[in-house]
Amino acid sequence: MLELDFNITIVGLGLIGGSFAMALKELNPKNLWAIDIDKEAIKTAEKMGIIDKGYTDPETPLKKSDIVIICIYPNLTVKFIKDNMKNFKSGAIITDTAGIKEKLIEEIYTSIREDVDFIGGHPMAGRESKGLGYATKDIFNNANYLITPTDKNKEENIKRIEELVKAIGFKSIVSLNPSHHDEIIAFTSHLPHIMASALIISDNRSDTKFFVAGSYRDATRVAKINADLWTELIMDNRDNTLEQIEVFENSIANFKRAIMNNDKENLKLLFRKGSQKREELI
Amino acid sequence: MLELDFNITIVGLGLIGGSFAMALKELNPKNLWAIDIDKEAIKTAEKMGIIDKGYTDPETPLKKSDIVIICIYPNLTVKFIKDNMKNFKSGAIITDTAGIKEKLIEEIYTSIREDVDFIGGHPMAGRESKGLGYATKDIFNNANYLITPTDKNKEENIKRIEELVKAIGFKSIVSLNPSHHDEIIAFTSHLPHIMASALIISDNRSDTKFFVAGSYRDATRVAKINADLWTELIMDNRDNTLEQIEVFENSIANFKRAIMNNDKENLKLLFRKGSQKREELI
Repeated sequence: MLELDFNITIVGLGLIGGSFAMALKELNPKNLWAIDIDKEAIKTAEKMGIIDKGYTDPETPLKKSDIVIICIYPNLTVKFIKDNMKNFKSGAIITDTAGIKEKLIEEIYTSIREDVDFIGGHPMAGRESKGLGYATKDIFNNANYLITPTDKNKEENIKRIEELVKAIGFKSIVSLNPSHHDEIIAFTSHLPHIMASALIISDNRSDTKFFVAGSYRDATRVAKINADLWTELIMDNRDNTLEQIEVFENSIANFKRAIMNNDKENLKLLFRKGSQKREELI
Repeated sequence: MLELDFNITIVGLGLIGGSFAMALKELNPKNLWAIDIDKEAIKTAEKMGIIDKGYTDPETPLKKSDIVIICIYPNLTVKFIKDNMKNFKSGAIITDTAGIKEKLIEEIYTSIREDVDFIGGHPMAGRESKGLGYATKDIFNNANYLITPTDKNKEENIKRIEELVKAIGFKSIVSLNPSHHDEIIAFTSHLPHIMASALIISDNRSDTKFFVAGSYRDATRVAKINADLWTELIMDNRDNTLEQIEVFENSIANFKRAIMNNDKENLKLLFRKGSQKREELI
């Protein structure tokens, strides 16, 4: 088991922060603290025993924390770090959990202190519902973790974060640069969320549920979305997202053309190609 | 429990036919027979005890069957019924399980005998894998069943099929006319399969699996598809499918426009609308 002889603070006790708290608590860190503006969330987390202590004022825990894991919206992440720049312990590692990285890291780097290390992180885990009430360490099991270090980060700090997320259940940890991250995520995450929403919005029936099977349910699952968060994520990754929507539009146009031309062989080929690619994904 | 004092024959021991056999066997019909061109499938089904006896030659079981459930591809369904028209027992109810209905029923009606009753059926249940090996009666549990009677069908026969599918676990049975069926299914089934395939085909990376979470996995799940079957289904429902693809294209264009214009309020509204509709689906 990983030796966690340092103090960790989680910022934001929502779905992700709460899940981090649950998972980290089992690793017995020296201290596991949390910061949240919501006193109720702190009280609940303390009662559940998933944190040692919670704070609404960041100063006290930050001054003593070796690792700070920020689990709030991307723009708030930037604001939190800037507002608390004087509070971080010298040598602290700060990481985040936002689904976009390039713009966020650039903004943080405009004002980061030399003696603290910000390393971008993206746990590819979530749920359709938000809040501590839905938190569970199970969402990390076998999930992917993306880490986006820059040449400002110290090797040993990167390694520490990698060990930490491995210890709480993530299966694969891939390191890539922030702009590459945002490009890929536009395809694997932002596009599927938009597709799910666009599909269900295009439904003008009231009795659809009697005519669906797994395909429609799965295709629309993530349409149940945190609209504020996803608007922020996508607007901070506009160019990549627009590009990926267009790539997808061209792909569906190929299917449309095959159907329009009654070109069975081509439609079959497209389905076969997709089927093979889906098998490779597993 | 439903009294099943008649002989039932299942045509085709694939995923759906095998699952029907498993589910029906538990209801203790007088006789449960199967027809398949694959001797191995028959032998397996007999060994599993999910049918009383299997036949490669349709004549013997059909002559004594009160209900015939056809679980093969749509075009083969039409061919099977036409080829065996002389073999059906007088008064028999024939039903099918194909995912399209209008063209299929029209073709069957061109040569149906007056003393047998064909009632179109569509169990909205499936899996990504085909064949008897994946069959299980569980796929019917809580699934939707669509039935597409016409004015040629006898009321008592429609009722009998409805009772039968209710007894094997289907949750909701909705009756609608064949052309309306095909219209709706183009949206709830054909479109999501095309979307899943188009999404995964548009991926040109080799390491995608390290960058995905549930959203991409769910969005592409049904891309693992029986290409022959789905080509047939969609080509037999071309106009409806093309129309629904266009409806979806217009919907995704709304998202694209909001993103392009950096119109946060509108993007948020679209997500909220989708989110609400998805909650209503449950």
